[in-house]
Amino acid sequence: MVAVRRLVIDVLKPHEPSLLAFTEQVAAVDSVEGATGSLIELDQEVQNVKITVEGTDLDFDDLESTVEELGGTVHSVDEVGCGDILVEERPTHQDG
Amino acid sequence: MVAVRRLVIDVLKPHEPSLLAFTEQVAAVDSVEGATGSLIELDQEVQNVKITVEGTDLDFDDLESTVEELGGTVHSVDEVGCGDILVEERPTHQDG
Amino acid sequence: MVAVRRLVIDVLKPHEPSLLAFTEQVAAVDSVEGATGSLIELDQEVQNVKITVEGTDLDFDDLESTVEELGGTVHSVDEVGCGDILVEERPTHQDG
Amino acid sequence: MVAVRRLVIDVLKPHEPSLLAFTEQVAAVDSVEGATGSLIELDQEVQNVKITVEGTDLDFDDLESTVEELGGTVHSVDEVGCGDILVEERPTHQDG
Amino acid sequence: MVAVRRLVIDVLKPHEPSLLAFTEQVAAVDSVEGATGSLIELDQEVQNVKITVEGTDLDFDDLESTVEELGGTVHSVDEVGCGDILVEERPTHQDG
Amino acid sequence: MVAVRRLVIDVLKPHEPSLLAFTEQVAAVDSVEGATGSLIELDQEVQNVKITVEGTDLDFDDLESTVEELGGTVHSVDEVGCGDILVEERPTHQDG
Amino acid sequence: MVAVRRLVIDVLKPHEPSLLAFTEQVAAVDSVEGATGSLIELDQEVQNVKITVEGTDLDFDDLESTVEELGGTVHSVDEVGCGDILVEERPTHQDG
Repeated sequence: MVAVRRLVIDVLKPHEPSLLAFTEQVAAVDSVEGATGSLIELDQEVQNVKITVEGTDLDFDDLESTVEELGGTVHSVDEVGCGDILVEERPTHQDG
Repeated sequence: MVAVRRLVIDVLKPHEPSLLAFTEQVAAVDSVEGATGSLIELDQEVQNVKITVEGTDLDFDDLESTVEELGGTVHSVDEVGCGDILVEERPTHQDG
Repeated sequence: MVAVRRLVIDVLKPHEPSLLAFTEQVAAVDSVEGATGSLIELDQEVQNVKITVEGTDLDFDDLESTVEELGGTVHSVDEVGCGDILVEERPTHQDG
Repeated sequence: MVAVRRLVIDVLKPHEPSLLAFTEQVAAVDSVEGATGSLIELDQEVQNVKITVEGTDLDFDDLESTVEELGGTVHSVDEVGCGDILVEERPTHQDG
Repeated sequence: MVAVRRLVIDVLKPHEPSLLAFTEQVAAVDSVEGATGSLIELDQEVQNVKITVEGTDLDFDDLESTVEELGGTVHSVDEVGCGDILVEERPTHQDG
Repeated sequence: MVAVRRLVIDVLKPHEPSLLAFTEQVAAVDSVEGATGSLIELDQEVQNVKITVEGTDLDFDDLESTVEELGGTVHSVDEVGCGDILVEERPTHQDG
Repeated sequence: MVAVRRLVIDVLKPHEPSLLAFTEQVAAVDSVEGATGSLIELDQEVQNVKITVEGTDLDFDDLESTVEELGGTVHSVDEVGCGDILVEERPTHQDG
C-alpha cells in the first residue's frame, strides 16, 4: 500500500484529558512525526478539535484507537495526503 | 502525447470505503506520485470529495476506473495541468 | 518580434472533448511548455474554461486553431505576458 | 513522552503585571525558547491575551503555574504542537 | 535622471489590435524587458486594459506613442517605480 | 531576565513632533535596532500611531520615557516578543 | 541621529507634472535609492498619490521641498522606518 503522509481529523472529545494531553498521546503513536491539535469550538460537555498529523506512513487505526481510548470520537477525516510526495490541495472555482 | 502532471477531480462517493481508503487507492494507481483527498461536503448518502493528484504522467482512465471500482463517480475534472512544466492557474479580472 | 511567454485564455467549449483531452491538445502545441485548464462554469451545452499557457515563445494562432479544431472558441484573451522576462501584473488602487 | 513544541494559550489576566512583564515571565520558564504575548481585548478589570510559546519541549504545568503566580488564569489552550516536527494546522472545507 | 523601472498604465484601446498584439508591441519598445497586458473590462467599442511594464530604464514617451499608434489612449499612469532599486508600494492604514 | 525582542506599542501623540521625528527618537533609544511608526488615525488634537520596535533586548522603560518626553502617551502595548527566538503569533479559531 | 530607511508619504499634487515626472524627481533626491508612486484617487483639480521611498538614510526635508517645488503638498506621513534594520509593521488585534 502507499504511504499515508498527512491526516486532518475532526474529533469530538470530552474536556478531559486536555487538548494538550490528547495531542501528546496522538503524537506518541508510532507512525506519527508531528501532530497539531487546534481547538475549533467547545460547549459544556465536549470540545470539537482538529488534529493535523504528519508522518512518513501514518497508521489511522492506531490513531483512531488512541482517540477512542482517550474518550474521543473521530467525527470525520477531512483531508488525507498519500503517496511518495505530499500534494497540497488545489483551490478551484467550484470551491464554495 | 504530453504528460499530464496534475488533476483536480470532484468526486461523489459513498461513505464506504472511507476517504482514507479511497485516497490510498487513488495514490496507488501507477502513474500517481501523490494524492490528497479533501472532504468538501457530505450528507446521509454520499460524500463530495476533491482529489488533487500529481505525477509525472497521470493516467486518467486508470484513475476514473479506480474511483468507479470504489463505488464513486467522477462528477467533474476541475483542473488539469499538462506539459513539460506544471503551470499555476493565473487569477484574472474576469474571475467571479 | 518579442517572445510571448504567458497567455491566459477564456474559452467556451462543448462538453466533448473533455477538459483533460482539451488541455492535453493545447499543451501539445509546439510553442507550449505547460498548460493548465481550469473549469470556471458549465451548463448543459457548454463549459467555460480558463487555459493558462506558458512557454518561451507561444504561438497564439496555433493555440486558437487548436481550440477551434476541438470545437471550442476563444471568448477572450485575459492576460498576455511578453518580453525577455515574465512580468507579474501589479495590483493598483484602481482595481475594482 | 513526545516533545511539546508549540502552545497557544488564551489567558485572562489583571492589568498588572503588564503584558510585557507577563510575557517576560512566561519566556523565562525553563522549557521556553520564545514567547509572544498579544493583546486581544481588555476592559476595566481584565485583559484577554494570547500567548504563543515555542520551545524544544515545553512544560505546560510550569507555564500554567507561572501564569497563575502572576494573577492570571488559563482560559483555554487553543493550539498544541507536539512531536519530532512542528506541524502547521491545515485549513479544511469544514472550517467555519 | 533616475531610471524608471516599472510602470503600470491604464489604457483604453479599441478591440483591434488584440490585447496580444498590443502587448507584443509594448514589449518591443526598446527600454522594455517585459510587459504584461491584463484585460480589466470591455464593452462593444473599447477594452480597458492594464499594462504592467518593467525594464532597466523605461521610456514613457516611447510607450505612450506606441499605445497611440495602436489606436489606444493612456487613461492614467497608476504606478511608477524609479531609482536604483525597485521599491514595492507599502499598504497603510489610510488605504481605502 | 529574558531578552525582549519585539514590542508593538499603541501611542497617542500630539501633532508635533512629527511621526518622523517621533520614530527617529524611538529608534535612537539604546536597545532599539529598528523602529517603524505607522499612522493609524488622527484628529484635530492627536495622532494615534503604532510603533513596531525590534532589537536584541529592548528596554521598555527607556522607550516609554522617550515617548513621554516627546509629549506622547503609551495607550497600550499590543504585542510583546521575548526569549532566545522571536515567535510569530499564531492565528487560532478563537480569533474574532 | 538614526538612519531613516523608509517613508510612505500621502501627497496631494496637481495633474502636472505627471505622476511619472513627480516620482522621477523624488527618486532623484540624494538620499533616495528607490521611489514608487501610486495613484490613489484623482478629481478634476488634484491627484492623491502615495509615495513609498526607501534609502539608507532618507532626508525628509529634501523630499518635502522637492514635493513642494513640484506644486504638491505632503498631506501626511503614513509610515516611517528608522534604525539599523528596516522593521515591518506588525498587524495587531487592535487594527480596525
